[in-house]
Amino acid sequence: MAQTGTTRIRHTVAFKLKHPKGSSEEKDFLIAINKLADIPGVEKFECMRQVSKKNKYEFGVSMEFANQKAYDKYNTHPDHTAFVQNRWLKEVEDFLEIDYEVLK
Amino acid sequence: MAQTGTTRIRHTVAFKLKHPKGSSEEKDFLIAINKLADIPGVEKFECMRQVSKKNKYEFGVSMEFANQKAYDKYNTHPDHTAFVQNRWLKEVEDFLEIDYEVLK
Repeated sequence: MAQTGTTRIRHTVAFKLKHPKGSSEEKDFLIAINKLADIPGVEKFECMRQVSKKNKYEFGVSMEFANQKAYDKYNTHPDHTAFVQNRWLKEVEDFLEIDYEVLK
Repeated sequence: MAQTGTTRIRHTVAFKLKHPKGSSEEKDFLIAINKLADIPGVEKFECMRQVSKKNKYEFGVSMEFANQKAYDKYNTHPDHTAFVQNRWLKEVEDFLEIDYEVLK
C-alpha cells in the first residue's frame, strides 16, 4: 500500500550474486545496477562492496528518495521493473532490504 | 585480525530492541547510542528508524571511518566497549552488521 509520508527515505539492499568473484558476469551486473541511478527520483546512489565477515553479502546499494511517493514511483518505473525481471531475479543469490527514515 | 587498508568504511548496524515501542527505555537507549558519535574517529554518525517491512529491525546506526585503523580504534575504545557491555548486550534483541567500502 502506498504511503504518503514526507520523510526522506534511504533505501539499501545488501546482496550476494550467483556469479564467481571477479568474474566478467559480476562486472557486467555491477554496470547494470549502477544504471538505476538514472531513474528519476533516485538521489545519492551508491554501489559498494560489503566487507564485514559477520554476514554473507558481497555488495550493497544505497539510494535516497525525497519521500515515499518518489520511492513508489521508482519501484514501478519500467527501467526498475525490467532490471528486476531481467537481471536481479536471475543473478542474485540472496539479499536483504533495509530502509531508513533519514533525519533532514 | 586488524587490517591496514586505506579504504573509507561505512559501518552500519540494524537492530531490534527488547523494549516496547515508544517506551522510556527505548528512548533512553537511543540517547545512549547517539553518544557513540563523540568517540574519536567516528564520522557522519546517524541513528535512524528502520521502515521496511521486509526485515525485523526497528532502528539502525550508520557511521564512517577514514580507514580500517580508525575503525579498529573505535572498536576498542573504552566508551564503545562499555556501551556494548552495559547497554547493547542487555537491551538488543537482534541485530545485523553490514559494512561497506565507500568510494571516495
